[in-house]
Amino acid sequence: MTKTKPSELPHTPVLDEGFVRMVDTMGNDAAIVQAARVSYGEGTKTPSDDETLIRYLMRHWHTSPFEMCEAKFHVKCPISVARQWVRHRTGSFNEVSSRYSVVTGDFYLPEMTNIRHQSKTNKQGRGGQHELAYAMQEVMIIVADDAHGKYKTLLDADVARETARDILPLCTYTEFYWKVDLHNLFHFLRLRTDLHAQWEIRQYAQAIERMVAGWVPVAYQAWVDYQRDAVTFSRMEMELVREMVQGAAYPTSVDLSKREQEEFWKKLVR
Amino acid sequence: MTKTKPSELPHTPVLDEGFVRMVDTMGNDAAIVQAARVSYGEGTKTPSDDETLIRYLMRHWHTSPFEMCEAKFHVKCPISVARQWVRHRTGSFNEVSSRYSVVTGDFYLPEMTNIRHQSKTNKQGRGGQHELAYAMQEVMIIVADDAHGKYKTLLDADVARETARDILPLCTYTEFYWKVDLHNLFHFLRLRTDLHAQWEIRQYAQAIERMVAGWVPVAYQAWVDYQRDAVTFSRMEMELVREMVQGAAYPTSVDLSKREQEEFWKKLVR
Amino acid sequence: MTKTKPSELPHTPVLDEGFVRMVDTMGNDAAIVQAARVSYGEGTKTPSDDETLIRYLMRHWHTSPFEMCEAKFHVKCPISVARQWVRHRTGSFNEVSSRYSVVTGDFYLPEMTNIRHQSKTNKQGRGGQHELAYAMQEVMIIVADDAHGKYKTLLDADVARETARDILPLCTYTEFYWKVDLHNLFHFLRLRTDLHAQWEIRQYAQAIERMVAGWVPVAYQAWVDYQRDAVTFSRMEMELVREMVQGAAYPTSVDLSKREQEEFWKKLVR
Amino acid sequence: MTKTKPSELPHTPVLDEGFVRMVDTMGNDAAIVQAARVSYGEGTKTPSDDETLIRYLMRHWHTSPFEMCEAKFHVKCPISVARQWVRHRTGSFNEVSSRYSVVTGDFYLPEMTNIRHQSKTNKQGRGGQHELAYAMQEVMIIVADDAHGKYKTLLDADVARETARDILPLCTYTEFYWKVDLHNLFHFLRLRTDLHAQWEIRQYAQAIERMVAGWVPVAYQAWVDYQRDAVTFSRMEMELVREMVQGAAYPTSVDLSKREQEEFWKKLVR
Repeated sequence: MTKTKPSELPHTPVLDEGFVRMVDTMGNDAAIVQAARVSYGEGTKTPSDDETLIRYLMRHWHTSPFEMCEAKFHVKCPISVARQWVRHRTGSFNEVSSRYSVVTGDFYLPEMTNIRHQSKTNKQGRGGQHELAYAMQEVMIIVADDAHGKYKTLLDADVARETARDILPLCTYTEFYWKVDLHNLFHFLRLRTDLHAQWEIRQYAQAIERMVAGWVPVAYQAWVDYQRDAVTFSRMEMELVREMVQGAAYPTSVDLSKREQEEFWKKLVR
Repeated sequence: MTKTKPSELPHTPVLDEGFVRMVDTMGNDAAIVQAARVSYGEGTKTPSDDETLIRYLMRHWHTSPFEMCEAKFHVKCPISVARQWVRHRTGSFNEVSSRYSVVTGDFYLPEMTNIRHQSKTNKQGRGGQHELAYAMQEVMIIVADDAHGKYKTLLDADVARETARDILPLCTYTEFYWKVDLHNLFHFLRLRTDLHAQWEIRQYAQAIERMVAGWVPVAYQAWVDYQRDAVTFSRMEMELVREMVQGAAYPTSVDLSKREQEEFWKKLVR
Repeated sequence: MTKTKPSELPHTPVLDEGFVRMVDTMGNDAAIVQAARVSYGEGTKTPSDDETLIRYLMRHWHTSPFEMCEAKFHVKCPISVARQWVRHRTGSFNEVSSRYSVVTGDFYLPEMTNIRHQSKTNKQGRGGQHELAYAMQEVMIIVADDAHGKYKTLLDADVARETARDILPLCTYTEFYWKVDLHNLFHFLRLRTDLHAQWEIRQYAQAIERMVAGWVPVAYQAWVDYQRDAVTFSRMEMELVREMVQGAAYPTSVDLSKREQEEFWKKLVR
Repeated sequence: MTKTKPSELPHTPVLDEGFVRMVDTMGNDAAIVQAARVSYGEGTKTPSDDETLIRYLMRHWHTSPFEMCEAKFHVKCPISVARQWVRHRTGSFNEVSSRYSVVTGDFYLPEMTNIRHQSKTNKQGRGGQHELAYAMQEVMIIVADDAHGKYKTLLDADVARETARDILPLCTYTEFYWKVDLHNLFHFLRLRTDLHAQWEIRQYAQAIERMVAGWVPVAYQAWVDYQRDAVTFSRMEMELVREMVQGAAYPTSVDLSKREQEEFWKKLVR
């Protein structure tokens, strides 16, 4: 068992008591190219260098070569965040079981600047900072402290762990291993770094995004350019855009390859 | 919109405030046969009647015809139960979001007979009844009532719902739609009606098991006979079994078809 | 077994000997709304009518309510098309087995107008019509006829079916049942009605698209507007678009809701 | 790009022109233990050593820790074998595309000893050796040679590759990368090393089985003992077994741990 223990690996703190560690990876930018060249065989001689090929694959939604890379993370996060995380079904989870183990007393307490009003415009979001943040935080501390204390009381009285844990609040920290392929990881990042995602899970997604940027820099940049920062216009919106660019000169400010220029025009004035 | 609303459909109460409804189904025993006959084409003339075919499919792990049936359920259960449920990734979930909606005050309180000691033999289970069940139940009520009350306080002060909900306990009820194919539903039933599953989720699994028995009676009985009540012996255990049956006469008490008799002997004395 | 046999259901011919039938469905536009209202609970009162809600869900990639609808198809298509089809892993297949059954003599022969040159610009596509189409078609007939004849010869000599079938050509027709949820069906349609998809599978996708339009008309139109006919611009392309629309007046020719207008501007000039 | 190219890795020949290479792996026996210890936390102190834990996990169908290991293979096999392979949907494939690339002339020709009669007892299998194997092999060579020759003719006449490939026989070799987690890999091995699997895919499964035995020796042995060589008796068969072992003495020939002995008796005489 020569492997470094995960606890010795560098980890990134997230929220007040949480973290993400990248425990292991399989493949890298070269593995994407390798798989793609099997798929497209001799046909891929033209997009001659590897970066061009990876960017072509990303641009044209050839997703399977990105599935050839895999990453494994060790995560500590509040249960409410974990519940959003497991909605991503294509991936493997190994979560600590509170039927087997005693839950530690860690719970997530939002910083005062993060205790905010219900958003007026966004039914699922938070709005401006709360003028009573301090008092509200006090309420949260009292409930969570009390619940964890009573949980201990129940355990001390030898109540079954699986019953006692039911009074723990959703802000209680949990831990899990998560293994996912790069294609599904990009999908996770796209949804969970989005401004509509809850602030808390976004902190985890951003920490993971930085790890991915270091792990597969070429694929990451392609994802930023063609997916994360891409913009999709609906059928009706495209009518507007097409009308608005009518007669406009083609800007020379942006340097696209000849192939991308052609693709652009096809999209704009079909 | 001629469809009956789900709230008008019969529902089965589970636990103190929960329920399961079977909202919709696609396919039935006949659909399994129909799909299998496409698969095995003219080759399926011998297992002449439909029941024999379905039982053959189940016995020999031909799982894809069972995937051709689909069921949709509406479930109300504690969050701790829902967390076990979503571990079954092959299926679709639509859960109420406590970012969008205010959570009702319903929480699960185990009956006094279900407040038990930590099992001495089973690290994840509960043991004998707790002599202080009444007092323990009181503790749970106090924590849950207080958490729900403070949750209301936070909402009244206009704290964002997504933040306030973090103090709710795991016994809080949630609701979701669950859609799953019959093969994966059988897998769920196998794991979640098992005595090692937590008592609470077992109540839901048993309620669903009765619905399945009414929906696809032939497939259900085949599953009972070849999976639920089947027993698997390891390589080493089979050495024991084989030694123990040495010289024993073949019992005439059980009426197996000729084909099943052959299969039995092959397994026993290979 | 009161169900109509699939062979009595209307079917749509595709290619020379193939077809698609919609065998069964679960759910419809109303089921999408029903599931979404569970998800978003009281929070969905504002998007007051069902159509608005469905279009909102599609626009914002809320995919799980669309997973609540399911459709089952019976397909007869060339093996080469089936091989592309099964790449869609989220769905269930029951294909006729040529180990169990004798393969019929049906094979796909492209019409003369579809026998074309290798595309000069598209490594995976076909180009202009072939001036020797008649002769090329003859070659294909000879090979397929001969292979099917020799296959019969092997079977007549009692060679195992699983061995004999190996000489059959990829244009041989096969049959399968396919069950898939609406979200993944839309994904299939998007990829397989695209001009980069092979012409043959596009014929099947288009036949299925018409069935979907009749089955869930509101969801279908939302998909057309927000996905099928939507256009995605990369990060770099958006720089161009933004420069080109600089100073252009907002067209009044397209009638968007106030909410969609706001979304449009946010995308265009962020 | 410091990675060894896959072509330099050792590969195992399978069939006449095929092979399997293990291109990459993530995790090993230690990674299974690591993930399980997160899951079961402090609760896993009793099954003290790693081997005992892995065997416990396998015996009790705790599948998620095995999902934490991943392997990637490069495979060259006949198309008919690849069609069986892709039925395993939980995994990633990158197959060479005959729309992009020219197919090489390699095709699979069964050895004479493998050209057999249709089985009398097994609708999907092969029976005794064929006395005309030589002549039958000749037929197969002629068809395959002719088809590949005519394919070249079509390509030389510049017919689109995606059209020309349709006359190629199912015995034509294809290549793909396959990435799969250990749990699903064991499932593949169980189904595809089984005697009911076609002989050809069994050769690939057996080659992969040997690689897995070298990669994760402890997990592999646990799989052999508790799954591959385990035997499952139906509800009715268990009645027979229980009657037959009535009064038999417990054999002392097999050395089970105390825990496994208890589990055995519970299964046998419940």
